[in-house]
Amino acid sequence: MPVKNGSQYMDRINKNLPEVWIAGEQVKGAISEHKAFKGLMATQASMYDMQQEDKWKAKMNYSSPLSGEPVGLSFLQPKSKQDLAFRRTMMQAWAYTHNGFLGRAPDYMNTALMAFSAAAGLLEEENPQYASNLRHYYEYCRENDITLSHVFIQPKAGRVPAAFLKFFEEPAAARIMDKNKDGIVVRGAFLLDTQGATSDEILVLPTPYSSEYEGENPYAFAFAVPSNLPGIRFVCRESFVGGDSVYNYPLSSRYEEMDTLVIFDDALVPWDRVFVCGDESMVIRMFDESHFHTHASSQIMCKNIAKTEFLLGTIEMMVESTGMGGHGYVIEKMTEVIIALETLKALQIAAEKGASHDRWGSMLPNKKPFLAANAYFPKIYPRMIEIIQLLGASGLIMIPDEKDFDTEINAQLNRYLKGIGLNAKENVQLSRLAWELSVSAFGGRQTVYERFFFGNSATVNGRLYQGYSQGRETLKQRVKDFLS
Amino acid sequence: MPVKNGSQYMDRINKNLPEVWIAGEQVKGAISEHKAFKGLMATQASMYDMQQEDKWKAKMNYSSPLSGEPVGLSFLQPKSKQDLAFRRTMMQAWAYTHNGFLGRAPDYMNTALMAFSAAAGLLEEENPQYASNLRHYYEYCRENDITLSHVFIQPKAGRVPAAFLKFFEEPAAARIMDKNKDGIVVRGAFLLDTQGATSDEILVLPTPYSSEYEGENPYAFAFAVPSNLPGIRFVCRESFVGGDSVYNYPLSSRYEEMDTLVIFDDALVPWDRVFVCGDESMVIRMFDESHFHTHASSQIMCKNIAKTEFLLGTIEMMVESTGMGGHGYVIEKMTEVIIALETLKALQIAAEKGASHDRWGSMLPNKKPFLAANAYFPKIYPRMIEIIQLLGASGLIMIPDEKDFDTEINAQLNRYLKGIGLNAKENVQLSRLAWELSVSAFGGRQTVYERFFFGNSATVNGRLYQGYSQGRETLKQRVKDFLS
Amino acid sequence: MPVKNGSQYMDRINKNLPEVWIAGEQVKGAISEHKAFKGLMATQASMYDMQQEDKWKAKMNYSSPLSGEPVGLSFLQPKSKQDLAFRRTMMQAWAYTHNGFLGRAPDYMNTALMAFSAAAGLLEEENPQYASNLRHYYEYCRENDITLSHVFIQPKAGRVPAAFLKFFEEPAAARIMDKNKDGIVVRGAFLLDTQGATSDEILVLPTPYSSEYEGENPYAFAFAVPSNLPGIRFVCRESFVGGDSVYNYPLSSRYEEMDTLVIFDDALVPWDRVFVCGDESMVIRMFDESHFHTHASSQIMCKNIAKTEFLLGTIEMMVESTGMGGHGYVIEKMTEVIIALETLKALQIAAEKGASHDRWGSMLPNKKPFLAANAYFPKIYPRMIEIIQLLGASGLIMIPDEKDFDTEINAQLNRYLKGIGLNAKENVQLSRLAWELSVSAFGGRQTVYERFFFGNSATVNGRLYQGYSQGRETLKQRVKDFLS
Amino acid sequence: MPVKNGSQYMDRINKNLPEVWIAGEQVKGAISEHKAFKGLMATQASMYDMQQEDKWKAKMNYSSPLSGEPVGLSFLQPKSKQDLAFRRTMMQAWAYTHNGFLGRAPDYMNTALMAFSAAAGLLEEENPQYASNLRHYYEYCRENDITLSHVFIQPKAGRVPAAFLKFFEEPAAARIMDKNKDGIVVRGAFLLDTQGATSDEILVLPTPYSSEYEGENPYAFAFAVPSNLPGIRFVCRESFVGGDSVYNYPLSSRYEEMDTLVIFDDALVPWDRVFVCGDESMVIRMFDESHFHTHASSQIMCKNIAKTEFLLGTIEMMVESTGMGGHGYVIEKMTEVIIALETLKALQIAAEKGASHDRWGSMLPNKKPFLAANAYFPKIYPRMIEIIQLLGASGLIMIPDEKDFDTEINAQLNRYLKGIGLNAKENVQLSRLAWELSVSAFGGRQTVYERFFFGNSATVNGRLYQGYSQGRETLKQRVKDFLS
Repeated sequence: MPVKNGSQYMDRINKNLPEVWIAGEQVKGAISEHKAFKGLMATQASMYDMQQEDKWKAKMNYSSPLSGEPVGLSFLQPKSKQDLAFRRTMMQAWAYTHNGFLGRAPDYMNTALMAFSAAAGLLEEENPQYASNLRHYYEYCRENDITLSHVFIQPKAGRVPAAFLKFFEEPAAARIMDKNKDGIVVRGAFLLDTQGATSDEILVLPTPYSSEYEGENPYAFAFAVPSNLPGIRFVCRESFVGGDSVYNYPLSSRYEEMDTLVIFDDALVPWDRVFVCGDESMVIRMFDESHFHTHASSQIMCKNIAKTEFLLGTIEMMVESTGMGGHGYVIEKMTEVIIALETLKALQIAAEKGASHDRWGSMLPNKKPFLAANAYFPKIYPRMIEIIQLLGASGLIMIPDEKDFDTEINAQLNRYLKGIGLNAKENVQLSRLAWELSVSAFGGRQTVYERFFFGNSATVNGRLYQGYSQGRETLKQRVKDFLS
Repeated sequence: MPVKNGSQYMDRINKNLPEVWIAGEQVKGAISEHKAFKGLMATQASMYDMQQEDKWKAKMNYSSPLSGEPVGLSFLQPKSKQDLAFRRTMMQAWAYTHNGFLGRAPDYMNTALMAFSAAAGLLEEENPQYASNLRHYYEYCRENDITLSHVFIQPKAGRVPAAFLKFFEEPAAARIMDKNKDGIVVRGAFLLDTQGATSDEILVLPTPYSSEYEGENPYAFAFAVPSNLPGIRFVCRESFVGGDSVYNYPLSSRYEEMDTLVIFDDALVPWDRVFVCGDESMVIRMFDESHFHTHASSQIMCKNIAKTEFLLGTIEMMVESTGMGGHGYVIEKMTEVIIALETLKALQIAAEKGASHDRWGSMLPNKKPFLAANAYFPKIYPRMIEIIQLLGASGLIMIPDEKDFDTEINAQLNRYLKGIGLNAKENVQLSRLAWELSVSAFGGRQTVYERFFFGNSATVNGRLYQGYSQGRETLKQRVKDFLS
Repeated sequence: MPVKNGSQYMDRINKNLPEVWIAGEQVKGAISEHKAFKGLMATQASMYDMQQEDKWKAKMNYSSPLSGEPVGLSFLQPKSKQDLAFRRTMMQAWAYTHNGFLGRAPDYMNTALMAFSAAAGLLEEENPQYASNLRHYYEYCRENDITLSHVFIQPKAGRVPAAFLKFFEEPAAARIMDKNKDGIVVRGAFLLDTQGATSDEILVLPTPYSSEYEGENPYAFAFAVPSNLPGIRFVCRESFVGGDSVYNYPLSSRYEEMDTLVIFDDALVPWDRVFVCGDESMVIRMFDESHFHTHASSQIMCKNIAKTEFLLGTIEMMVESTGMGGHGYVIEKMTEVIIALETLKALQIAAEKGASHDRWGSMLPNKKPFLAANAYFPKIYPRMIEIIQLLGASGLIMIPDEKDFDTEINAQLNRYLKGIGLNAKENVQLSRLAWELSVSAFGGRQTVYERFFFGNSATVNGRLYQGYSQGRETLKQRVKDFLS
Repeated sequence: MPVKNGSQYMDRINKNLPEVWIAGEQVKGAISEHKAFKGLMATQASMYDMQQEDKWKAKMNYSSPLSGEPVGLSFLQPKSKQDLAFRRTMMQAWAYTHNGFLGRAPDYMNTALMAFSAAAGLLEEENPQYASNLRHYYEYCRENDITLSHVFIQPKAGRVPAAFLKFFEEPAAARIMDKNKDGIVVRGAFLLDTQGATSDEILVLPTPYSSEYEGENPYAFAFAVPSNLPGIRFVCRESFVGGDSVYNYPLSSRYEEMDTLVIFDDALVPWDRVFVCGDESMVIRMFDESHFHTHASSQIMCKNIAKTEFLLGTIEMMVESTGMGGHGYVIEKMTEVIIALETLKALQIAAEKGASHDRWGSMLPNKKPFLAANAYFPKIYPRMIEIIQLLGASGLIMIPDEKDFDTEINAQLNRYLKGIGLNAKENVQLSRLAWELSVSAFGGRQTVYERFFFGNSATVNGRLYQGYSQGRETLKQRVKDFLS
């Protein structure tokens, strides 16, 4: 199958029938009609539709080197700056469709898989078959437009430091329980499989529990499996879809990505899907040497810019509708958002302009602007949300419901709740948007998600610090020369 | 009736039958059983019960000077430092009952009304009858243990600056439409009547629309009415009660105070309930010269300290259950919370220690520490919530439901979701608490509410700046002397 | 004269003999040998020398369209992106010579004058002669490699709001006292003429005192004069040159730019040097419509990047010499500096990449990244200095003098004051550098200077906010479409 | 000798003749006339004079339990809350004399010595003689009004982690080289002996180099010696006294405390001055169990409050003289300072109110408010200085010299540099004060000193965190109860 459209996407997910639990009940029937998933799936379907629309398809696809059929541009391994620009144009188009609220839009994992596959040569050090498995898996996903999710970490109980293990009856770290002729048998749980229940497959690539094994470490592995593999189940958090009304819930009714806990209960992973098995250092190297973070950042920057633009547009509307545009304290806050936007856009330009070939033949963006952006956005996003709270004030609290406008109190709402340039219903709608962003559980989860998108601040800072070691050395030398 | 207990409180509210709208429907039947109100009312009922409990009643009540019956201590006009201490002890007891999450626990309005009534002499300048009305109203509330709410501001449309009025077809500012032998006829809407639907009465004391009227200003008034006065209605925002489960929703199932918009549609306010009518400056003076903010702060400090303690206890639990207590970045964040707590407690002590008599015979706490606290808390509360997000990380996102523990996935949850010193169900419960505080709509509304409790930062800063004019002058003189 | 070298620069300044006062004494003799100026002038001389050095001259100069002689590249009106790159390369070379510590390196005013002259067409609206004067003045400066300073504002007493004028016996605002056949007679004082005493000429372009004059406003003018014009004097602040020792004072011994107050005491400005005379709006328009801030930012970005790199190199040395590189709190602070550097570099790239022609035929960088950078740097520079304080700690306080190493205590200093990889004398030298940056008066003045480089934050924010009005409108429309 | 006066203080210091080096020269002659010390010593003399002045002496002294003579109140071991109040009143009087700029006013070390001596019982565990030595030393200082300095840490080279020792030829940590019948022989260097050159004696109590010795650790010791002990020398940093003029340098001409490096070159410390010798844990315990930080904080709070008041008075003058008092951004910044002041005052009140007896019979203030204050002030002081920069702007840069007013440019300065309510000379004087606070090296050193007064933030935070362990436990339990 070449690139799929929205209904093909939904059909396949609906047929998959993975085991999904939410609030004590197992999901039955079509996932795409379940209230916790339908808004998101409709949004994502509209993105897939673009791949077949005349208006968009030239920007969304390229010809498969295997089949010649159109396949998604986010699968393309970039070999030139023009490839980077093609990829960016495609990813921007999707980002503007979801206004940056999807952390796991399909191009994210497509890009990730491309990066890992391009670096599959690494795996040959462990086992040439694993390298081959990964390359074939990438092709399989690309040619079949597979919607993929992933897990990288385990619940805290699975990575508790040795010193605290005494508090636990049995170790909870994920591990290979057995290897047989058909594959490896895995037991353990993984966090935070965003969109796990609405994807075809899942890539499992967790940081291994640090062992003292000599030779093979049963805690070290990487593989991919269908979401409906026997022996795995998804446990959902509470849904933050406020309701069906796009008026009341303009964001959560469209963009609520469910997060799941994935549990492997001695599930059998077939050999042709195994990429790492027992080599503790290989998992770390796959991230580092594939330049996963750099490639993924190409996609994330598009998302973050679209999201920042959406916030700035929202704030501009809030300011205009209340006539507070001239005040210094308002201008100060808006310039913070503008600076954030210009900074993100500039870092994107700089990374692309400074791109160069890596050892895998990819045209790799300059990682330094991206690493800086990855450390910057988790700090500025919560601040922008705080600015919405500071400017929205009590207008974020006392907001009626869409249905209130259909009752006898309609006339009074119209009288008392209008804004400058907006009638009451439009003004309340704007308030609901600002509320979803800055007060609702949907908004709260977005804030936490952005804070920890690429790890906690120690991790993200450390990545930048290490990635800058050559730069630091050069500048130190300049000061040394100045002093001598 | 002397001090009431919980069931008396609920009975009276249920009998009132005010007109309350929520999500397009009018509330029918007992408010205390409506899912949006029952948790809050149960909490508040337990507070009223304390007034009649043997263990508590000596600390909660004093003898009415009118009847000799026990009446609530928060109605007491303090005449000595000991009175301040009595009042504080009582208010702390209630604050620890609701852990600081009720912004409008009954002692707040009891205190406010006491402050206004003690300063009723002011109103004699406009009309001696108004002064008398206010004093009688205070006695009525005290003797009948009236549960009171209040409104101080209008929706933005009602206070839009003149320059923008051209955008509006008709002025929306609240005003007196008519005066007749029975009273005054009022039209307008008021924000943010927290607990409006669960109170007996409502005090209306809005900042008047600044007019250029000579003589009487129809936009200037103050009065109190029963919540079921004909011609008024309450419009609720969306309820943030997550559900009945105190496990899933430990806070919102107990502490969700509904906020309402109150609409007066030519409602008739009887003369004996009118406190200001037409005198534009009097409303401002009632706030300033009654020392409303200082008296109210006595109550608010108890609430804010209880709340900060609750946050610190929660954070300590989070830190212990994850074993991250030794890290510098954790200690740094916890010390921020500890400093906040010690600061609030110290400001409370300093205000009480520096109390002195005002012109109304009240023992008035030193306003300066309170004004400082009022400017400080709106900044530190959001930071403490941010700290919960920063320490909670992905543990705030992937949280299962209480019901999940009653299914076949129970064993796996127990394996993978336990914490240090907590089994999985306890650990998840802690996560749900942290989530309600820092991610949920209930938590988001608490944050916005605290940010704007006493007005926006310009207002609160200005109050402190003005209240410090003598202090600034003294210190300036000291520097002048130093320089000369 | 084509481009000058260092000794030609010093000779001309020394011959000028302007009236310069410092600490109650008038400067006599060669300014280039005065302790307050010699270090700076030597630095600047080395920059001018580059213009004639074989190694550098191809990068520093271009052929004068008038004479064909080499003239300074910072005078070049850019007409293509390549011109922007040439200019940038030249300005970077100078910036790395002074490591970003000169706020008024000659390329700053060369660029400013180029921008004003390119937009001289504007002045034709007031008087074609003024436009011609400005163009000729630009050519004069370019062909003679004039070292230029400028003043844009008046002391506070000269721009006191009308409401406070009652406190003053006589108005202190600068004004034209007379116009005669030879020129205009000017009285007033101007701030903050950095390098006023070490420049050939001075450009006077102050924001006019807002008058209610119809027709000509005597407070509105712009002109340029030699620094030794009869009737003007320069009053210096205290010199922050710590001493001659480049060991003790690595920065102030080289980079201390003196700031002056310039006083015009009925000085006669000849007509051919007058650019604006009486037209109040023209001064504002000259700034806005010449895109002064955008062109000047091309130079400032080079300076700010060089300075940030110098700070990062210094911090890296500090961290290495104390062995504290692995700590999270150190990495966190260093990543702040790295993010600042990457942000500035990216904004520079983005502005140049987004350049387009303006109405004057100039290739104008995209102003938005520059406006963002102008609002960002005044905040991040003090933070970077704070980071030096936080990492330097007591090592910034107890620092011996170079001379101490020449005494009998030398052996003990060597024993107790060494660092990791640095002997005691090197380690102390590094401490002196860190001290000059973050503790000394030189460093303090640098911090204040950067905070207010382009005005206070309200001014700089307002410039960005206004410059972004189209962007805000576009994004608002996107959100409106989303909601409808 | 009972309490001394200023001239007695100066005479004794001058007679001491310690070996003091500054900028490569050894100080000869009377220290009190050396330009680096005379201003400070005059200030301190005026403080000692108060002890004998009729107006002050009742508040400054108490009767020696040994001799009945008046001795300084800061030596008093407090046994009641009234004692705490007496001590506070005395220390406030001195703090207002130096406006909080002396970090080592004599009452600081008097208090420290009192705390150590009161807890001398501890030392009996090591050696009863040491306990006796300490008690006698305390009496000696009290009865002779000894001016004391101290050192607690070593230069970085003396406490370099083992991992880095390979970079050093020989260990630089201070140690006991020999013990003989007369005493112990000590070699090493100590930081940051503020006022070392202007004190009679020095208390040496460094954190010991952590050794793996069993039994006696030669790196562990505590003792006190006269400043002129053979074998010790003081090395000064650069003096930050700007000059003699109190107009130009209102602060540094009076309050510049010199910091020194003290070097012990096999100096012999007599046995009767030894307090710890070889017991590694005892040094730590002396700090903890004597409650040194709590007692010292009594003194420091007086200093910090006086200093904050001085800053607020200065800012008020700046704001008034420029007429910017009404602006929101000014009010916002001033309220930050006001909140700081009210917070410090409240924490002082709370600590004293919560005092209780410790095991040594002292009335010990509640340590929690003090620990909070110790973590708070190092953050807020730099912010207050930043506020001065932000409000002072270019007025902090272009400031003439006092001498300029005695020249022919006087008239013009008078015209252009006046402020609202201030003539030019007064206005410039205010600018010089603001400049010394926020730009000069004196001000820079004050900022660094306050940041690290009680250690870096990790140390200070850790002290608060540990000191709060019981409080954290209690609050955790409250939340646990809430959840169960």
